[in-house]
Amino acid sequence: MELTQARNDLIELQQRIAAYAHGMGSIIYDGETTAPKGTAANRAQSLGILSEEMYKITTGEETVSLLEFLDENKEELSDKERRMVYLMLKDLRRMQKIPMEEYVEYQKLIVEAQAVWEKAKHENDFESFRPYLEKIFDANKRAAGYCEPEKDPYDYWLNEYEEGIDMKFCDEFFGNLREHIVPLLKKIAEKPQVDDSCLVGDFPDYKQEELALYLMKVMGLDLEHVGLSTTEHPFTTSLGSHFDERITTHYKRDNFASSLFSVVHEGGHALYDTGSADDLAYTVLDGGVSMGIHESQSRFYENLIGRSRGFVNYIYPKLVELFPDALSHYTAEDIYKAVNKVEPSLIRTEADEATYCLHVMVRYELEKAIMHGELEVKDLPEAWNRLYKEYLGVDVPNDTKGVLQDSHWSSGSIGYFPSYALGTAYGAQFMKKMRERVDVEECLLKGDFAPINDWNREHIWKHGSLYTPKEILDKVLEGPFSTDAYVEYLEGKFGEIYEL
Amino acid sequence: MELTQARNDLIELQQRIAAYAHGMGSIIYDGETTAPKGTAANRAQSLGILSEEMYKITTGEETVSLLEFLDENKEELSDKERRMVYLMLKDLRRMQKIPMEEYVEYQKLIVEAQAVWEKAKHENDFESFRPYLEKIFDANKRAAGYCEPEKDPYDYWLNEYEEGIDMKFCDEFFGNLREHIVPLLKKIAEKPQVDDSCLVGDFPDYKQEELALYLMKVMGLDLEHVGLSTTEHPFTTSLGSHFDERITTHYKRDNFASSLFSVVHEGGHALYDTGSADDLAYTVLDGGVSMGIHESQSRFYENLIGRSRGFVNYIYPKLVELFPDALSHYTAEDIYKAVNKVEPSLIRTEADEATYCLHVMVRYELEKAIMHGELEVKDLPEAWNRLYKEYLGVDVPNDTKGVLQDSHWSSGSIGYFPSYALGTAYGAQFMKKMRERVDVEECLLKGDFAPINDWNREHIWKHGSLYTPKEILDKVLEGPFSTDAYVEYLEGKFGEIYEL
Repeated sequence: MELTQARNDLIELQQRIAAYAHGMGSIIYDGETTAPKGTAANRAQSLGILSEEMYKITTGEETVSLLEFLDENKEELSDKERRMVYLMLKDLRRMQKIPMEEYVEYQKLIVEAQAVWEKAKHENDFESFRPYLEKIFDANKRAAGYCEPEKDPYDYWLNEYEEGIDMKFCDEFFGNLREHIVPLLKKIAEKPQVDDSCLVGDFPDYKQEELALYLMKVMGLDLEHVGLSTTEHPFTTSLGSHFDERITTHYKRDNFASSLFSVVHEGGHALYDTGSADDLAYTVLDGGVSMGIHESQSRFYENLIGRSRGFVNYIYPKLVELFPDALSHYTAEDIYKAVNKVEPSLIRTEADEATYCLHVMVRYELEKAIMHGELEVKDLPEAWNRLYKEYLGVDVPNDTKGVLQDSHWSSGSIGYFPSYALGTAYGAQFMKKMRERVDVEECLLKGDFAPINDWNREHIWKHGSLYTPKEILDKVLEGPFSTDAYVEYLEGKFGEIYEL
Repeated sequence: MELTQARNDLIELQQRIAAYAHGMGSIIYDGETTAPKGTAANRAQSLGILSEEMYKITTGEETVSLLEFLDENKEELSDKERRMVYLMLKDLRRMQKIPMEEYVEYQKLIVEAQAVWEKAKHENDFESFRPYLEKIFDANKRAAGYCEPEKDPYDYWLNEYEEGIDMKFCDEFFGNLREHIVPLLKKIAEKPQVDDSCLVGDFPDYKQEELALYLMKVMGLDLEHVGLSTTEHPFTTSLGSHFDERITTHYKRDNFASSLFSVVHEGGHALYDTGSADDLAYTVLDGGVSMGIHESQSRFYENLIGRSRGFVNYIYPKLVELFPDALSHYTAEDIYKAVNKVEPSLIRTEADEATYCLHVMVRYELEKAIMHGELEVKDLPEAWNRLYKEYLGVDVPNDTKGVLQDSHWSSGSIGYFPSYALGTAYGAQFMKKMRERVDVEECLLKGDFAPINDWNREHIWKHGSLYTPKEILDKVLEGPFSTDAYVEYLEGKFGEIYEL
């Protein structure tokens, strides 16, 4: 094999893989946004076949010899090519270990599971979803066993979503957080509660959509390349490359803040993805490197930016213009306090910043228990409700607002949740570094996101998946990661709001 | 090769092709419905690659030897299998003649052309679209030359959209129609014009959407398997199989009839596609056989049903309920007459039944001239405007309402238009046969579409592409096709409305 040819083949192979991912991604995206309700089995049929084709391409003889040849000649490659080969070989080794039939079956399973979960959530019917969830957990356990038999299966999946972490790390990380969050919450509970009545009212969908598009523009998203749709559970996805990005939201007629913060959260993911250097498009380096770094961006925009006094002040006139009846009696400060009200609650995506990580810890503990056979899926609702009582002190009234609330498990993501908490903590430490160079308050007051986005682009976005999460952290933080910045931020912000 | 194995392989091959078509179809559908505006090049990149993969599958050695083996053993096959092999071999022979690079380039071209056309239409800018249209006409001429070099290139394409027709047939067909339509229009022009002021008013999109969904239900479409979206130009498509069908419409705020008849027209296509026998799914026999038969169904529901007195009477209460301010002063008979007002106009899709075929004839003459090098694309707007003046007596004010109005050319369909007129005439003759067994008036007054749909399903829909258009006509009509039933229908209906 000739090196020049092999380097070209490497690019072509990735373009081919990106095209399949685009086709499959469009089928899935359509299923979650606009497809008629009775068509899940039809999508499963096609996705099953296309997964099989993708499997053949990524594990085929030609691919194997190409990647092995390039790996043998890695000193001749550029940094980017070396990383491409590394990531693709890693993927290949894993795919080779999973029998093709199981791989294809699993792709079909999660398409069907998504539709079943959505219906189950609507109808508060965990039992109909249970067999699917059992299969999903089993398949994840089996896959971990195939790929790294010597490793704990939950450690395997944690590391898949955030390279370098394991249960030992998470236990310590969550332990640290709890140590500070629990006393903080106790102090807050002793103080008079914030009035959040301004958040409730009548907010028609089309006005909320106008707000969403306004927020996307303010954040600096390019609406020629980033689309907005509505789904049961908000998410962000790229189709084909970072040149076509989609975010989704969910409008609640009686509460405008729910969609507002979903849009800013998903918008953060979209900024990260679309911020990849253009020459990374159609390669495995396109888009964010890990779920932890991804969530560091989404949670950064949602909270450190979105729930800041400066940002709320900036968007206040637009809010009053859109919803004069509901909001004109309130000040920007009323809204700032309302969107920062701390109160243990049921729904993770709507949790305040102080209690948020407790929601994540519940899911972490449950995943850990199931992956180790210490808890059965059939007992999950009961265990969920028990932990919500223990960690957050709330009674879960039904599974719709409990164990069925998130779409992650139905889409096959086991081990993803911890990255939300981790990303949140990364984000707080990134903000601390950013403030050394950028006057963030000034930017927010003027609604000028360029300096903030430029800093993130330069340090994080443009690299796509070129560096590992650890390498990114080392480069950006110029020192070790810790929960200190996050704890400091929480104590400072809520100390001021609640006059602790 | 073993026959049993080959028969299984035939089914698997078709499932594989259907999966690729599903992926590509979803990318295209997304592009026309919800994708952000700047993403056409990204879709072209993926569609180019996936077309290449599809090309390799359909023309690969394995496929060739499988189909040839089955063809050699065709006496052993079922009718369905024989037809599958015939259609796939026909496709294969054609694909083999078109160089792969040209095929792939063409797939990319029409994705980009679609976006360019849409913008050009909005901005009344034919010039920006011209180079794309030139390439599309050239590519169609070249493809015809590759496939059947001895045949006239326009005859080639006419036959592709409706097996069995050519220019000789079309000239005669259109000649017959003109002979009757021109005097009919002259007589109508001498009579007092119908008052259609009831059609104009304020009709918000969300109310029109409610009407669209109501109409789909009344027509007997299964909303669990048929979706509704909005696009620049309404169309119908299947994704993966007839188990997932989509129709689109376009709401005009000041005119509810435009979307109403689009929905009933596209609904007719969707009834035909979704009416395929379920065991045809994921085979080449799934869905309608030709554009002519397809348009016979869409134009049947749009006009013979949708613009009938019985149907207008049936939906009248719903119309008044949705649009009380605009419509409660009018009777059902006012609306019936208004939606049947005959008046030469600019836009084909909104033309009345009497002038409709003249719009088609303009396109037919222009396509013929370009395909024979008698007209250049750069002179198309002028020629378009001249023929509209000559055939319909109207002055075309701009290209948006002229040569840029339809999406067919930008999507690469040259030779498609005649099937609209042909289908319209088929439909009138089908209706005449149907009335021998079904009391159509009674059905419409009761809003009971079951007997009408059952007749169409039994005679046309369930067969999918098992029979040629000619075989379908022979079976259904039990006699030769002619324009008589259509002319008789037009003369009867408008004779009564205009008291000729």
